[in-house]
Amino acid sequence: MIKVGMVGAIGYGGRELMRLLMAHPEAELVAAVEVEGGKRLDEVLPQFQKLTDVTLETFDAASLAKRCDVVFIAVPGTVSMKLGAALREAGACVMDLGSDFRIKDPAAYAKYYGAEYTKPELALEAVYGHVPWHREELRSADLVAVPGCFPISVITPLRPLVQAVLPAVPVVVNSVTGVSGGGRALNEVFHFPTMNENIKAYKLAVHQHIPEIEQEIGGGTLVQFTPHVAPLTRGILSTIAFRPSASIDPAQVFSCYDEEPFVRVLPEGQLPDINQVRGSNFCNLGWKMDERTGNLMVVSCIDNLVGGTAGMGIQCMNVRFGLEERAGLKLPGMAP
Amino acid sequence: MIKVGMVGAIGYGGRELMRLLMAHPEAELVAAVEVEGGKRLDEVLPQFQKLTDVTLETFDAASLAKRCDVVFIAVPGTVSMKLGAALREAGACVMDLGSDFRIKDPAAYAKYYGAEYTKPELALEAVYGHVPWHREELRSADLVAVPGCFPISVITPLRPLVQAVLPAVPVVVNSVTGVSGGGRALNEVFHFPTMNENIKAYKLAVHQHIPEIEQEIGGGTLVQFTPHVAPLTRGILSTIAFRPSASIDPAQVFSCYDEEPFVRVLPEGQLPDINQVRGSNFCNLGWKMDERTGNLMVVSCIDNLVGGTAGMGIQCMNVRFGLEERAGLKLPGMAP
Amino acid sequence: MIKVGMVGAIGYGGRELMRLLMAHPEAELVAAVEVEGGKRLDEVLPQFQKLTDVTLETFDAASLAKRCDVVFIAVPGTVSMKLGAALREAGACVMDLGSDFRIKDPAAYAKYYGAEYTKPELALEAVYGHVPWHREELRSADLVAVPGCFPISVITPLRPLVQAVLPAVPVVVNSVTGVSGGGRALNEVFHFPTMNENIKAYKLAVHQHIPEIEQEIGGGTLVQFTPHVAPLTRGILSTIAFRPSASIDPAQVFSCYDEEPFVRVLPEGQLPDINQVRGSNFCNLGWKMDERTGNLMVVSCIDNLVGGTAGMGIQCMNVRFGLEERAGLKLPGMAP
Amino acid sequence: MIKVGMVGAIGYGGRELMRLLMAHPEAELVAAVEVEGGKRLDEVLPQFQKLTDVTLETFDAASLAKRCDVVFIAVPGTVSMKLGAALREAGACVMDLGSDFRIKDPAAYAKYYGAEYTKPELALEAVYGHVPWHREELRSADLVAVPGCFPISVITPLRPLVQAVLPAVPVVVNSVTGVSGGGRALNEVFHFPTMNENIKAYKLAVHQHIPEIEQEIGGGTLVQFTPHVAPLTRGILSTIAFRPSASIDPAQVFSCYDEEPFVRVLPEGQLPDINQVRGSNFCNLGWKMDERTGNLMVVSCIDNLVGGTAGMGIQCMNVRFGLEERAGLKLPGMAP
Repeated sequence: MIKVGMVGAIGYGGRELMRLLMAHPEAELVAAVEVEGGKRLDEVLPQFQKLTDVTLETFDAASLAKRCDVVFIAVPGTVSMKLGAALREAGACVMDLGSDFRIKDPAAYAKYYGAEYTKPELALEAVYGHVPWHREELRSADLVAVPGCFPISVITPLRPLVQAVLPAVPVVVNSVTGVSGGGRALNEVFHFPTMNENIKAYKLAVHQHIPEIEQEIGGGTLVQFTPHVAPLTRGILSTIAFRPSASIDPAQVFSCYDEEPFVRVLPEGQLPDINQVRGSNFCNLGWKMDERTGNLMVVSCIDNLVGGTAGMGIQCMNVRFGLEERAGLKLPGMAP
Repeated sequence: MIKVGMVGAIGYGGRELMRLLMAHPEAELVAAVEVEGGKRLDEVLPQFQKLTDVTLETFDAASLAKRCDVVFIAVPGTVSMKLGAALREAGACVMDLGSDFRIKDPAAYAKYYGAEYTKPELALEAVYGHVPWHREELRSADLVAVPGCFPISVITPLRPLVQAVLPAVPVVVNSVTGVSGGGRALNEVFHFPTMNENIKAYKLAVHQHIPEIEQEIGGGTLVQFTPHVAPLTRGILSTIAFRPSASIDPAQVFSCYDEEPFVRVLPEGQLPDINQVRGSNFCNLGWKMDERTGNLMVVSCIDNLVGGTAGMGIQCMNVRFGLEERAGLKLPGMAP
Repeated sequence: MIKVGMVGAIGYGGRELMRLLMAHPEAELVAAVEVEGGKRLDEVLPQFQKLTDVTLETFDAASLAKRCDVVFIAVPGTVSMKLGAALREAGACVMDLGSDFRIKDPAAYAKYYGAEYTKPELALEAVYGHVPWHREELRSADLVAVPGCFPISVITPLRPLVQAVLPAVPVVVNSVTGVSGGGRALNEVFHFPTMNENIKAYKLAVHQHIPEIEQEIGGGTLVQFTPHVAPLTRGILSTIAFRPSASIDPAQVFSCYDEEPFVRVLPEGQLPDINQVRGSNFCNLGWKMDERTGNLMVVSCIDNLVGGTAGMGIQCMNVRFGLEERAGLKLPGMAP
Repeated sequence: MIKVGMVGAIGYGGRELMRLLMAHPEAELVAAVEVEGGKRLDEVLPQFQKLTDVTLETFDAASLAKRCDVVFIAVPGTVSMKLGAALREAGACVMDLGSDFRIKDPAAYAKYYGAEYTKPELALEAVYGHVPWHREELRSADLVAVPGCFPISVITPLRPLVQAVLPAVPVVVNSVTGVSGGGRALNEVFHFPTMNENIKAYKLAVHQHIPEIEQEIGGGTLVQFTPHVAPLTRGILSTIAFRPSASIDPAQVFSCYDEEPFVRVLPEGQLPDINQVRGSNFCNLGWKMDERTGNLMVVSCIDNLVGGTAGMGIQCMNVRFGLEERAGLKLPGMAP
């Protein structure tokens, strides 16, 4: 059994990773770190009652490194940098569900995150944990930057497209996320009577996932990324208008995913929805070429907390430790 | 008091128009036509109990024309053509909430609606009831094609932009609608356990509102329109990527709406949401210029059943009959 | 035009009252008091743009009393007592949407609200604004305690039943409210990802609406009141098990409401739902006698913010100032 | 590996059972029966793509009995009787997720289900699969009637209470279910715009789960059961008013569940909610004694499709075949 530590156990990413671990056949939760150190995990999160005896502890890099084969981190931005560095120094294998090790260019980090990037060497060491495109590097990685939720839904379809043909103008990406993407922090926007029956666009032109997406799709492509939030708890649907600068056969391009365990490409004209992926690690893709306008339209769906965060983290762990890649991730989408 | 008839009283558009009429100070419902003729309206729609004694009747053009100053129609496509023609022949002033009189080009109608267009002369006679751009024609119109819901949210921001500067590539429009936009007909997609916690894109590249939008914004502009449905009952939010072919000052362009009673343009960087317009006749606009990508981003919001259908119908009626334009439409957005 | 002041303009009760006033034909908002004094109302609540020029002001009892025919209050418990007393001293006619003047027995207030009751004489002066049962007193009332939302849904059916026959055991009342009943204050329970897809029972046996209900239904009846919150924004549905101590004819009992403008009693076996009342001032009642168990089951529905708060406040005002009782309240339930 | 057949694969109960099987370490889906026989399962339910190659087949009792260790049935009432009888004759071990084998008294079945009960001997043979109270019988059962969803949430708390002390008057049970409880059949009540933002009580005094509940709690107790449906997909919360005819110590009564793997009793005054159980097999209980009224209030929560149907079916299978009882059911509640 792979021994797993979770730093930041109460946030939505951490909870979800621990939830998946409860049913993982080859990995077990041995440590959960949170500021509420000293309380039983199931006292703070009652859904874990009768499932685990883990007690929350405060952060101690050496202890975690000693007891855990891998330590996941899910804490706010810039904090992750510090805890991750301490864990790496203590010799731990670290997988960060946050954003601190994803951006290779410190200037881009500073611009979009509004904070100095103090560990550029760690960002360079880190393997970007988008498994389909970094599987081989992950097998020996000791620092993994698990991708962001929006980026997974955008990079998966766009990377092979951009490699096949550059877009003529910036790619227009509209993503809609469930509210869990906003995390557990209280916020008037996410107060139920404000968010229910509402839809909001936000952070136009400045969202922090832009540099991550552009880094991973490559080709110097610009992305016009507009996130939205709608009244559902889980799921991301991204709609992409890609204007190819030359002709392209999307079915052939997407065949690169035929053997991927968690990427499913639908036949032309069929479109994915959240029901196909909720609670699962899948990323589903659909597409349609619009001959009238010259745009290739692509739609992708993930569960932002599983395929978009914790599930892909588990998949990275499975690859890194030579476990069956689908271990602990075999549930199909929960529908209804 | 203006006497109003409603043909198609039980569909969502008809219900909403009648709902607004209950509180209209200068108009009253005198006839409601539906296949359930003979039953009291409030037997079929109990929310009308203690508010009206109207009894549902079957369609009789002559009788309606005689008793009503204006007859609204809200029935399925192609049926509207026939009922509207009969009412016009009987001398009624007709306002159609459906799509049969909106498209001036019969070929476009046939292509997008998959049905022959049998009344091209009526389509040419009809005034497209987007009040801000057709107010003067409406004052004497006897046949009004009340605009579609998505189109109102798209034409309102795009028409003045396109008049100011043509876009360099097709405009990319992503719209998200509440489920009431799909009407009252049962459909597996709109079954609560299917639709709740879900988001769907649909009718990529072929939605029937495309020709209506392109007709009204003009300039030969192509629109890449992708509708989505999200788990809320009411509201449309449209996100528009407009790539100006020359420089433009959006604030100046949108100043054309300063005196419009139901269009509200927010300061740059502020974005509208459904809470601002739910249950009201307003169309709210926000925008942001993205210098990095060269795109102007615009976001618009309406209540699809009020500002997107019945409310604009009432506004057309108010203009046509010389009533105060805001009569019966004074409620602000219902939030929460 | 009746001139209305609103103290506590930003909370949900205050917003809703102002929203209804925008379309009221015989009353107008002339003052809105909130801590954000100095800002335009429509800057804080953008749904009011292009509808009112009112600027928020800070509390000044004398000024309000001078400029307003009636001042509504919607502020947190115990604050209302102070502001209401000051307004009464300044000579204003006061209608409180909160709970501070509803309970005649100071000991009950102290027990359920956990605060000392400092204005017992005002509670005695105040008319409890449940219009069907206090209409005559309201015509000359200068201090009105508008009832709570749950109580309206419970008192309306129970008061005539208890007057007809006492229950054999405590009446069991289960109410489910929409989340707007919890107000605008942020709270982990009402964070969208916590509340969505969830149902909660709360305050078992200790809810502060118990004494208000028992006071108004009379007969020394005990009520086992259990409130729940479900993932919808507006509406209350109360399910009542009443065990009559003698035989009873519910249809005859409820005939007392035949002429009430906003109470609608459905035929036996038909049940109300939120769709019948959303956005309206109605209280709908349905019932069924269960001969097998000996219980009379009653179900009632209101919109907690209209029929449950602001709408009944407007109705109280209409009665008090001799306006048409339904003025400003003519909209049927918004469905969908 | 236990080989499992699923008859009625497309309904919500069948889907959920197959979903859980995908991740079950000791059981596998080998046959799925549905009217769409001939299609691949993942063509009809795309969430199963890349997870199973099972092809839907039409019903053939002999073939299923031969290939499967256990056959689950999830089909409409009265159909189950016939298919179950055929499967039993063919020698299969049968577990029915429907209601046809739950009621021992044919007269009660006929009264509440409005259909003749043609297989009374099978109802007598069937073990009622409420695991905590029938575990020993289940070990050798060849026909299991998996309990209904509402009944699980009611029997779990009430059975030990009734055994400890009879209630003085009929127990009042109010249950609220998510909409998936209504199944996949289209119905105007469950159309998204009708059901969203709505709550409904239904089948007052006549719901078909009443005889099942009264049979299992025993003592001749009458239950005043009122089901409601609220706008969430999954989950049942039941609120129970139990008026003990003698004094009782609920903590002691509920200690019977200390070792149950899927029943969790909270300390007095703490209440469960759907977040604690969504997607899991748990039934959580909370309670409070109201000394003022003399009622014991109990609240219980389950996921109606897991703990309320498919999960308990899996648990029955695990017990019957000597697997680890928690196999395939180790996920905690999904929150958010």
